[in-house]
Amino acid sequence: MSSSSLHHESPSRFQVVYRITRRNETSIESLARDLVIEQTVECPPESLSQEILGKRIVGEIQEMVPMDSIQGAFDVTVSYRSDTTGFTVPQFLNVLFGNTSIKNNVSIQDIRFDTSLHQAFRGPGFGVAGIRELLGVYGRPLACTAIKPMGLTTGQLAELTTQFALGGADIVKDDHGISNQHFHPFEQRVCACQEAITKANARTGKNSMYFPMISGRFDQLERQVQWAVRQGIRGILIAPFLVGPDTVRYLSETYNLIIMGHPALSGTFFHDPSHGMPPAVLLGTIFRMLGADISIFPHAGGRFAFTEKQCSDLANTLRRDEGQWKKSYPCPAGGMSLDRIEAMSALYGVDTVFLIGGAILKHPEGVLEGTRVFMDRIREHFPNEQARRVSDESPSSCELPARRQGFGPATVLRHKDYRWSDREVTAYKSDDSCSFRGISRQELTGPFGEQTSFDVRYFEIEPGGHSSKERHAHEHIIIGVRGTGKLLKGSVLIDVNIHDVARVATMEPHQLRNDSTEPFGFFCIVDHNRDRPIPVE
Amino acid sequence: MSSSSLHHESPSRFQVVYRITRRNETSIESLARDLVIEQTVECPPESLSQEILGKRIVGEIQEMVPMDSIQGAFDVTVSYRSDTTGFTVPQFLNVLFGNTSIKNNVSIQDIRFDTSLHQAFRGPGFGVAGIRELLGVYGRPLACTAIKPMGLTTGQLAELTTQFALGGADIVKDDHGISNQHFHPFEQRVCACQEAITKANARTGKNSMYFPMISGRFDQLERQVQWAVRQGIRGILIAPFLVGPDTVRYLSETYNLIIMGHPALSGTFFHDPSHGMPPAVLLGTIFRMLGADISIFPHAGGRFAFTEKQCSDLANTLRRDEGQWKKSYPCPAGGMSLDRIEAMSALYGVDTVFLIGGAILKHPEGVLEGTRVFMDRIREHFPNEQARRVSDESPSSCELPARRQGFGPATVLRHKDYRWSDREVTAYKSDDSCSFRGISRQELTGPFGEQTSFDVRYFEIEPGGHSSKERHAHEHIIIGVRGTGKLLKGSVLIDVNIHDVARVATMEPHQLRNDSTEPFGFFCIVDHNRDRPIPVE
Repeated sequence: MSSSSLHHESPSRFQVVYRITRRNETSIESLARDLVIEQTVECPPESLSQEILGKRIVGEIQEMVPMDSIQGAFDVTVSYRSDTTGFTVPQFLNVLFGNTSIKNNVSIQDIRFDTSLHQAFRGPGFGVAGIRELLGVYGRPLACTAIKPMGLTTGQLAELTTQFALGGADIVKDDHGISNQHFHPFEQRVCACQEAITKANARTGKNSMYFPMISGRFDQLERQVQWAVRQGIRGILIAPFLVGPDTVRYLSETYNLIIMGHPALSGTFFHDPSHGMPPAVLLGTIFRMLGADISIFPHAGGRFAFTEKQCSDLANTLRRDEGQWKKSYPCPAGGMSLDRIEAMSALYGVDTVFLIGGAILKHPEGVLEGTRVFMDRIREHFPNEQARRVSDESPSSCELPARRQGFGPATVLRHKDYRWSDREVTAYKSDDSCSFRGISRQELTGPFGEQTSFDVRYFEIEPGGHSSKERHAHEHIIIGVRGTGKLLKGSVLIDVNIHDVARVATMEPHQLRNDSTEPFGFFCIVDHNRDRPIPVE
Repeated sequence: MSSSSLHHESPSRFQVVYRITRRNETSIESLARDLVIEQTVECPPESLSQEILGKRIVGEIQEMVPMDSIQGAFDVTVSYRSDTTGFTVPQFLNVLFGNTSIKNNVSIQDIRFDTSLHQAFRGPGFGVAGIRELLGVYGRPLACTAIKPMGLTTGQLAELTTQFALGGADIVKDDHGISNQHFHPFEQRVCACQEAITKANARTGKNSMYFPMISGRFDQLERQVQWAVRQGIRGILIAPFLVGPDTVRYLSETYNLIIMGHPALSGTFFHDPSHGMPPAVLLGTIFRMLGADISIFPHAGGRFAFTEKQCSDLANTLRRDEGQWKKSYPCPAGGMSLDRIEAMSALYGVDTVFLIGGAILKHPEGVLEGTRVFMDRIREHFPNEQARRVSDESPSSCELPARRQGFGPATVLRHKDYRWSDREVTAYKSDDSCSFRGISRQELTGPFGEQTSFDVRYFEIEPGGHSSKERHAHEHIIIGVRGTGKLLKGSVLIDVNIHDVARVATMEPHQLRNDSTEPFGFFCIVDHNRDRPIPVE
C-alpha cells in the first residue's frame, strides 16, 4: 500500500473515517490493511500485481488515531479512488461498507466527499430554504403530522388530512406502513388526501402539503410517483432501505419532489456503536446524499433508544456545509408528545421539522384541536414567525420529464405507395458535384427509441439515379421492394428484383443504381452503431 | 388485542417468530404488545377504534416461549394479516422489521409464510434442479470462481474468465466490486467475458456460465440486464441491499435468469445475535423469497465471523420445503482455500456451490491449473459425477435449430415464390402439444458468416397457423411480405399487410397469427446475439 513511488496517475479520492476496535492481539495496522483490501480488490495481497498497486485502486490508510475514551479503538482515515465507486450509489455503498458490514468492530465516523462525488450525487433538491419557499413559512420550525393507522378507509384518512391541515400543520404525511393495501389503495388514497389538503388550504390560506408513502414494487414505484405528481403532490415519504437507496436518488433527481426520508429497516446499522454507521452518517450524510430534504429519526426519550448526542450530531450533519449540497431538515419523531416541544426547540433550533403523530390522534379534544395546540406550542418558542407569499411555480404535471420530441419507436408503420406512416421522407438534393443522384430515404426503425442493434431504412432511386460509391466496415443487407435495380459489388453488377436479398460485405466497394424507367426501392438494414462510409473513386 | 370475539372477517395471516430479550423490569407481555403495535398501526393503543381492532390489523401474539439457554429471552410467535404487506417486498419487510429495526433486543428466528405470500413472491426461478439442468452437471457440488481484482482491464478479466472456464469451473462470476467503472465498463466487459466463456465451452464441451455483477443506478440497471441477456448471459450476481430487495425479485420474475445473491451491506442485520435477523432468515428465507437461486455467504473459519451452526442453519433454510418455492443453493465463500473442500463437502453435501476466488488466483501453477485442482478436489469427495446432455429448452417457433452448414453468406439470394436461393426452409412439425402451428422459417442472413449485428429471417404462416406466444429482451422488427396477418402485441391485435413495418418491444408478449385464407409471410429482423424467448400463457 505504500505506493507513493508507484502511482502513474492521480485520480481524485474521497475519505472515510472508520473507527476500528481491537479485540485481540491483531495489530491496528493489520486490521486497517485487511479493511482497505476487503473494500476494494478483495484479493490476497500477494496476488496483487505492480500494475494494480500502481493504479492505487487499494484504499490507502492516511491516519490512525487512538481514541482515549474507548479501549482499543482507533479512528482510521482511509482514502479511495472516487472512480472505484463507478459514481453510482450501489457501488459507492459497496466500497464504503459492503463486505465489511459482515465483519465486526468497524464503525464509520465520517465521509469526506471530494468534488467529483459531490457532483455525481446532487443531494437535496429543495433543502431547508426551498421548502420554506414552497410553504411560505419562516422563523419557526415546521410542523408535520401523520395519517394513520393502517386499515382505516381512504375516506377516514382523507378526513384526518383535512383536520390536520385545518389545524395548521405544514406537512401531513402517510404513516410509513400505509402503502398500496386494498384498505386504502395508493391511487385512490393519494387522490382523496391531496384533494382534502387542497380544499383545506383554500379555507386556511396556507399552503400545507400532503406526502404519500412510496413503497411499491420496483416496477410499480415510478408509475406511482408519476401518478402522485400529476395529482399535484409536492413531496413524498420514502424509506431508502425498503425500496433501495438509489431509488431515492433517482426520484429526487428526476422529479421535482421534496424527499422525506424514513429510517425503516435501517436500525441495525446503528444498533451497536462499535459496528455499522451511527445515525449522523447513515440518516445524516447518506440520506442527504440520496436527496433527502428531510430526514426522520427517533428523538431521544421517545419509544426508541437514540441519545440526545446522537440526535444533535445527526441534526448538525444534515445542516453542515457539504460542497454545493443544500441543507436538509432534521425531523425528530418517534412517540413525541406536545409537552416536549420546548426541549426539542432548544436542542434543534429553527430549521427543524417536528413530527407528532399519535399524541395528536389521541388528543382529548380531537385532531383539529390537537393540531392547533401543536402549532401554538411551536409558536410559543418561536414567536417571530413570518409568513410570505408563496412564489408561483409551474404546475407539477408539467415537470414530468419531457417526452422525446418527434417520432416514437415503431408500433406499426403502415405502408402505402412506398411511404410509411409516422416517418418522414428525406430527399437528397443533388447536383453534378454530388456523389449521388435522385435518391430518397425513409428511416423506419432504429433511431426512434427502439432497443435494436440494427436500423431499417427504405431507399428509393429515380430512373437514372444512383447512390454514392463507397465502402465501410459495416455490412448492408438489401431487400428489393419496388421495381428493379442494380447493385455494384466490387466489380460485379447484380440485378436486385423484388424480395431479392443481397449482401454487401465488410469494406466491399458498392453502389446502387437504377438503370430502368421505373423507381427502384429497397430496404437497407444496417448495424445501429456503424462506421462512416469511405468514398470510392 | 384479545379480539377473537370482534373479528368480522378472517383474512389469511402469516407468522413471524421474534426472539425478544428482556433487559429490565418491563414484562415480556408488554414488550411483545409494543412490538405488534409498532409493526402495524403504530398508534397509542388507546387511540385505536373498535373498527380497527375488529379488522385484526394489529399483529396478534400467539405464543411466548421462554428460552432456557438465554437469560431473559422469549420466542414470541406473532401473526399478521397477510394483506397488510400489500403483497409487495418493501411493505412486507416494513411489517416484518421496519421500525423495530431501530429498537433493541428483537431478533427474527423464523418466518412462516401462508399460501398467499408463497404465491405473491415466486421464489427462485431455477433452483437446485434447474441450474443442474442448464449445466448438465449432476452428482457433485458446483464450482464457482470470481474474476478480480477491480482495476484490471477488460481484456485481463476476459482472459481470467477463459482460464477459469478451461479449468472446468461451472460458474465464473464478477467480483462484487466490479461494476461499471471506466477500467472495465459494463457492456464491454460483459461482451468480452461472455465471448470468452462461449469460446472456452466450445473447447471443453462444457456449458459453463458467466454471471456479471449488476449494481447500476436505478435507471440504468434494467437496461444493463437486458443488454447482458441479449449477449446470452444466463445468470447475474446481485446484492439485494445495494440495489434494493425488490429489484432482485423483479429481475428474477421478469427475465429468465439465474439469480446469485450477494450479502454486501447486509451484515449489520446479523452482527448482534440479540437484534436483527440471523443469516438463516436474511440470506436464507428472505433472499430465497426474492428469487435467489444461489445465496453467497461467508463460510465459517474464513475472513468473516460466521459459525458452523449459522452456516448449516442457513444451508438448511435455503433447501427446506417452502410452499411451491424451488430449493436454492447455499454458496459458502469468503476466503476459502482448496484444502478446506473436504470439510465443506461434509458440512453442506452435494447441492452446494463452492466459491473459491483468491486461493485460485494465487495458485503457484497459475489460474488454469488452480481451477483444475479445485475441480479435482471436489470430485475426490463426490466421485459419482454424472454429466448429462444439456436439454433443449422450451422450443420456440422463432428459435428452433435450422441447418446452416454448407451455406455461405449472402451475395444475393434470389427470390422466387417466397423462397430464396441458397437457403433452406425449416418447416416445423407441430402437434397439439406445441406452442406453434403451421409455421415455416427461412434464415436469410446473419448466421452464415455475415458480420452483421442482426439476422434476417422469412417466416410464413399457413391459414389458421400461429407462432409461439412469448416474450424476450430482444426486439423484433416485422415487415409484411405476403398476404395479411395479425400481430398480437400485449393485448392489442394489429393487422400486418405487405410492407407494413411493426415492432415488438423489449419483454412485450407477442404472437403472429394467420386468420386469413392465404399464406401470411413476413421478414423478421432480430439482434444476432439475443436471449431465449420465455413462453407466455
